[in-house]
Amino acid sequence: VSPSPSLIALDWGTTALRASLLADDGLVVDTRTEPWGIMHVPHGDFAAAFERVTAEWRRQWPGLAVVAAGMVGSANGWIEVPYRAAPAGVDELASALGIAPDAALRIVPGIATLGEQPDVMRGEETQIVGALARNPRLATRSVLVLPGTHSKWARVSEGRITDFSTYMTGELFAVLRDHSILGRAPATSAGELSRAALDDAFARGVRAAQRSPRGVAPLLFSARALVVTDRLAGDASLQYLSGLLIGDELRCGLIDDGPPAALVGDAALCDRYRAALALLGVHDVPVIEGAAPAGLWTIARRAGLVAAVGQASSA
Amino acid sequence: VSPSPSLIALDWGTTALRASLLADDGLVVDTRTEPWGIMHVPHGDFAAAFERVTAEWRRQWPGLAVVAAGMVGSANGWIEVPYRAAPAGVDELASALGIAPDAALRIVPGIATLGEQPDVMRGEETQIVGALARNPRLATRSVLVLPGTHSKWARVSEGRITDFSTYMTGELFAVLRDHSILGRAPATSAGELSRAALDDAFARGVRAAQRSPRGVAPLLFSARALVVTDRLAGDASLQYLSGLLIGDELRCGLIDDGPPAALVGDAALCDRYRAALALLGVHDVPVIEGAAPAGLWTIARRAGLVAAVGQASSA
Repeated sequence: VSPSPSLIALDWGTTALRASLLADDGLVVDTRTEPWGIMHVPHGDFAAAFERVTAEWRRQWPGLAVVAAGMVGSANGWIEVPYRAAPAGVDELASALGIAPDAALRIVPGIATLGEQPDVMRGEETQIVGALARNPRLATRSVLVLPGTHSKWARVSEGRITDFSTYMTGELFAVLRDHSILGRAPATSAGELSRAALDDAFARGVRAAQRSPRGVAPLLFSARALVVTDRLAGDASLQYLSGLLIGDELRCGLIDDGPPAALVGDAALCDRYRAALALLGVHDVPVIEGAAPAGLWTIARRAGLVAAVGQASSA
Repeated sequence: VSPSPSLIALDWGTTALRASLLADDGLVVDTRTEPWGIMHVPHGDFAAAFERVTAEWRRQWPGLAVVAAGMVGSANGWIEVPYRAAPAGVDELASALGIAPDAALRIVPGIATLGEQPDVMRGEETQIVGALARNPRLATRSVLVLPGTHSKWARVSEGRITDFSTYMTGELFAVLRDHSILGRAPATSAGELSRAALDDAFARGVRAAQRSPRGVAPLLFSARALVVTDRLAGDASLQYLSGLLIGDELRCGLIDDGPPAALVGDAALCDRYRAALALLGVHDVPVIEGAAPAGLWTIARRAGLVAAVGQASSA
């Protein structure tokens, strides 16, 4: 017996729009992904993008609620949904959903901390709700790390996000690779480097960051200097740079927050963080995948959107 | 009596080609600047660019030597001139000039340090030679800071560069401004911000960096978070970011090297460093301008290139 669909969940961020069709037990039964991050929505027409991604499912199951999380709720998104102040958990988020113009879409607000060093997240709060729903033992008190364009180190207490820190690790790597001298290392190898050689360069970067108590600023240029002085293969310099940046994030985060209880996010990226953590003596940190749809389902259910549909279809 | 020209000096770096005509006392009597940095030489034709910039002077004063410093001597330049190993000063540089294909141009080598954390410079060694020639008291023992795309903190002893560190401060600022979310802050002011408001944002960035012992990684995203939480005007966020990055460089450099004896380079950029240094309690650091042509003249004279021309013109 195939479970009946109960929700359309949209993970709508800067680079992609990931739509999931969820069953009434929260499991994903179908997905669609388009490269329509908020900066790349065709003609800037959010309503049209929304329609194209959800129309088929909504035609087949009329009345299905749609909930989105991520930058779609930012000032540069479809409609701006104000941040909730931390501490915030599923109750605070479910009670503050924004409504897109045609009223067929609810949008989860981001969370802001407003202390001496304010910080903001949009999308990660939903992943954290999903991670906690899947791993309730983490809800009491834990630190979760969400690697990414803007990595988040989130402190959770009694099911709510109390505080967090952002590291621009992923974006910093991307802009340095694509637009700085560090992305223009000459190829120095005769053939393609082995996986082991690339892993070794990554590890060198992590260890260099670990040995640099003042941070990454005095280290960044070593990704070039090592190449031009023949101490690092040009083909491996981006792996070394990735190790430097991830290693520096982990060095700072481990001092401030201690070892994370889990990594939440893309498996391949989380694996790099696990490898770097192991080099720093922190082993076996679990990885939680699929947290975004799980979080959207949890928030929608708390907001009464899943139950309402269930009643409608059983009527 | 107008002094007779004795040398054409080229400061040929990544972003520009600055040609100076020098008198026999080393003073600049004429200049030409083209946006022909080594990445932007028209059609990649170095010989043609060289010809266009120097032809008129060379026609008027045949036999005038031409000496260049900077990235023109790198693997991505005209011809690659091997680095000299530190320690190196005017003697080591003058005895290792490279010769461009048509033999009308000598190129000063860069300097490399080859210790545990190797580092390289090309162009700055010539500015340092010029700074020391103009301020001989700095030659005995000093730390010179050369702000720029790749800032250098150079240690000088007995007239030679013994060691140095590179901070990618200028390039990091440029790529974050042009290609990251930090360059896309919404304009939050009704009108244009005052100079004082911009200076204040710069100072906030410097002080934030000063208070962050682990470095700039946990701080970068604050340049956005402060704006979206209405604690910083969007129009001032790049000034704040500039303060963060320069402040972090100075924080690290002051720990490693102590207060610099002088700043060498562009006056406007050096002024930003002076302002940041003052916020960190280091006052009245002198600025040395025009160091590149002075260094080229000093090296050329040591290599016998200026004397030779002098003899020719007096014959």
